[in-house]
Amino acid sequence: MENNRLEKQFNFCREIDKEKFIGRQTYLTDGERKENDAEHAWHMALMTILMSEYANEKIDVLKTVTMLLIHDLVEIDAGDTYAYDTEGHKDKRAREEKAADRIFGLLPEDQRKKLRDLWEEFEAWETPEAKFAHTMDCIQPLMLNAATDGKSWLEHGVHLSQVLKRNEKTAEGAETLWKYAYENFICPNKEKGRLR
Amino acid sequence: MENNRLEKQFNFCREIDKEKFIGRQTYLTDGERKENDAEHAWHMALMTILMSEYANEKIDVLKTVTMLLIHDLVEIDAGDTYAYDTEGHKDKRAREEKAADRIFGLLPEDQRKKLRDLWEEFEAWETPEAKFAHTMDCIQPLMLNAATDGKSWLEHGVHLSQVLKRNEKTAEGAETLWKYAYENFICPNKEKGRLR
Repeated sequence: MENNRLEKQFNFCREIDKEKFIGRQTYLTDGERKENDAEHAWHMALMTILMSEYANEKIDVLKTVTMLLIHDLVEIDAGDTYAYDTEGHKDKRAREEKAADRIFGLLPEDQRKKLRDLWEEFEAWETPEAKFAHTMDCIQPLMLNAATDGKSWLEHGVHLSQVLKRNEKTAEGAETLWKYAYENFICPNKEKGRLR
Repeated sequence: MENNRLEKQFNFCREIDKEKFIGRQTYLTDGERKENDAEHAWHMALMTILMSEYANEKIDVLKTVTMLLIHDLVEIDAGDTYAYDTEGHKDKRAREEKAADRIFGLLPEDQRKKLRDLWEEFEAWETPEAKFAHTMDCIQPLMLNAATDGKSWLEHGVHLSQVLKRNEKTAEGAETLWKYAYENFICPNKEKGRLR
């Protein structure tokens, strides 16, 4: 019984290695290589630990960190949908639900439920933890985009209005962080013409 | 004042992006690409959340996760020292201390101290959290090595005795996990001759 539980946990832990192969559109600070989902999750988890003091509402840090560590696992099956890919967003939810069934389903039932619920909570964007996690999910790529002079935005011909639309709820998790990101990551790229 | 604090925090968060370029010797489950430090840290953080129930002594999960998320940051300056590189281990501590001074020094003083202390605690290998973090740090690459039929061990001509020496304290964090890893990750590779 005990071994069956541990076997399931290790099977899940081995399976999620695949998140390291899910590429994103954001360039790393070297401006050469693009980030993958596992690197993105690590970065945001640590940013959350350091920046939770700016949350609009008090957050449970471990819960928020866990949410961020797992929130992209569904992309192992469903793939990454670029923030500004309108077409890809149409069936995103259906693809990701199927992926969540399979991937979280590898775990023992109690942990399957815990992680699935946490993913659903992230998706619902309602609790303080979910709001803060989304703030991180938006601000971390803004920081990297600014560090590479908006390279990814330029390549995709992204408009300022698209970035603002994408970030219309970013302040809900942490106003201070959104204000900083707007002034330091977005505005300079608008001025330099890297954002249309 | 407030902005100066946030500025420091973002400077640190941007700087640690470089951890994604620090390569390790472990192959990912595809057997093609090798892991980097950020991916490794993400993987262990999630494994800790799922496997803390096996800790020999009760651990503070958030503290252990934070320790694992930051424990390799010093390698941004000091580089990764392969587990079986005797020469590289001679000045490892000196190189890493200098790195810790610079990298954690980017943060506001309270957070610099918190992260530096946590890194020292990991290095000292004494508290339940440090012991469990080391168990993860040893078992995660064992799991990946087994998933790739010992490819990295074979390439480096690693001996079973070296793996056992490297893991002589792995059971201190979680006996159950060490037993599982020994039986399922190490023994089969000894039998198949992938470990000398």
